[in-house]
Amino acid sequence: MPRRVSESTIRRLSHYLRALEKLERDEVPTVSSEELAERGGTTAAHVRKDLSQFGSFGKRGLGYRVPELAASLRHILGVDVRWRVALVGAGRIGSALFEYPNFAERGYDCVAIFDTDPEKIGRCWSGVPIRPPDELETTIRALGVSLVILAVPPEAAQCLADRAVSAGARGLMNFAAVQLRVPADVALTDVNLVMELEALSFAISQGGSKA
Amino acid sequence: MPRRVSESTIRRLSHYLRALEKLERDEVPTVSSEELAERGGTTAAHVRKDLSQFGSFGKRGLGYRVPELAASLRHILGVDVRWRVALVGAGRIGSALFEYPNFAERGYDCVAIFDTDPEKIGRCWSGVPIRPPDELETTIRALGVSLVILAVPPEAAQCLADRAVSAGARGLMNFAAVQLRVPADVALTDVNLVMELEALSFAISQGGSKA
Repeated sequence: MPRRVSESTIRRLSHYLRALEKLERDEVPTVSSEELAERGGTTAAHVRKDLSQFGSFGKRGLGYRVPELAASLRHILGVDVRWRVALVGAGRIGSALFEYPNFAERGYDCVAIFDTDPEKIGRCWSGVPIRPPDELETTIRALGVSLVILAVPPEAAQCLADRAVSAGARGLMNFAAVQLRVPADVALTDVNLVMELEALSFAISQGGSKA
Repeated sequence: MPRRVSESTIRRLSHYLRALEKLERDEVPTVSSEELAERGGTTAAHVRKDLSQFGSFGKRGLGYRVPELAASLRHILGVDVRWRVALVGAGRIGSALFEYPNFAERGYDCVAIFDTDPEKIGRCWSGVPIRPPDELETTIRALGVSLVILAVPPEAAQCLADRAVSAGARGLMNFAAVQLRVPADVALTDVNLVMELEALSFAISQGGSKA
């Protein structure tokens, strides 16, 4: 398996998997790289290059067998197993995330919620209790949480990230507008909505190339 | 001005601007590329390279003058003007976005909201009325909306994107898990939360390099 795969490749793999799963539901047995490219918003050459990084798939002139390629991509993307997720921060963004229907569907189960608000602590969201932050480490360990979503104010994010990592979290999805430092063996993805808008206004200001 | 600036450069510029604005508040007059690098989670050489794409800033041995560099970055990122934003989709994600405090602070004013739900249409969020989708084009034109946030189901996203663009929207921020097609002069940024989680589980599955 390759060490470095670009972020954009991973995103395209996600798109190919979506397309393959639609084809699976429609019981389409095979798909060409051209068709996958069309659905992934890219080119056939790109599809072949992306997939070739992970092994040998498909046959020239016959295309890819849909169920096999879907299963391979699920394995590559790590979505053929279920992941235990903790949500830290039960504010507006946190509640929108918790209710996001696609998470459980894609194998991500939110098993723990944390918030500092005494009004919220002890309540349940769909059976998952909201806990105080001082239970972070014990809960992550007890429930085998590997992914942590940080939907907290920027000033609290680094400390909570450190604590989650020390308790065994292996991946962090950070919504706080702050650059977090994590050990090299911990995965980190930032979702900074202001920066997404800035990328748009930058592109428009510079004359309209894609953000 | 350069034509192609990488997404990661734009993101680092956003981080530098955050750091500079903190320094402005603390009335620090100058900053070195080392200090900016530290705050932007990068290296001094990277800071100098990023900034050199946009002109000549700072003096060797003296560093950058904080207010000037902040003003330049605000101009480069297009955040020295106010942007009129429409929110399409007043569900959970939409409401979390609408309440996101940093948007207005950074110059993004949400002036229109659209939803198909008859229960919601006619209500106001902080004085902004929720309108039916058939008013999309007229409202975008009348209010001079340039950025549109799409927080709608995947099957509705492309059609609404096309309509927003035809009415004059110049940038789209897409939360739907679907690859949108837009004209080359329209900026597009995708926020796909499932794909962010997949990037994490991919990184963990492949052995823990950063997502």
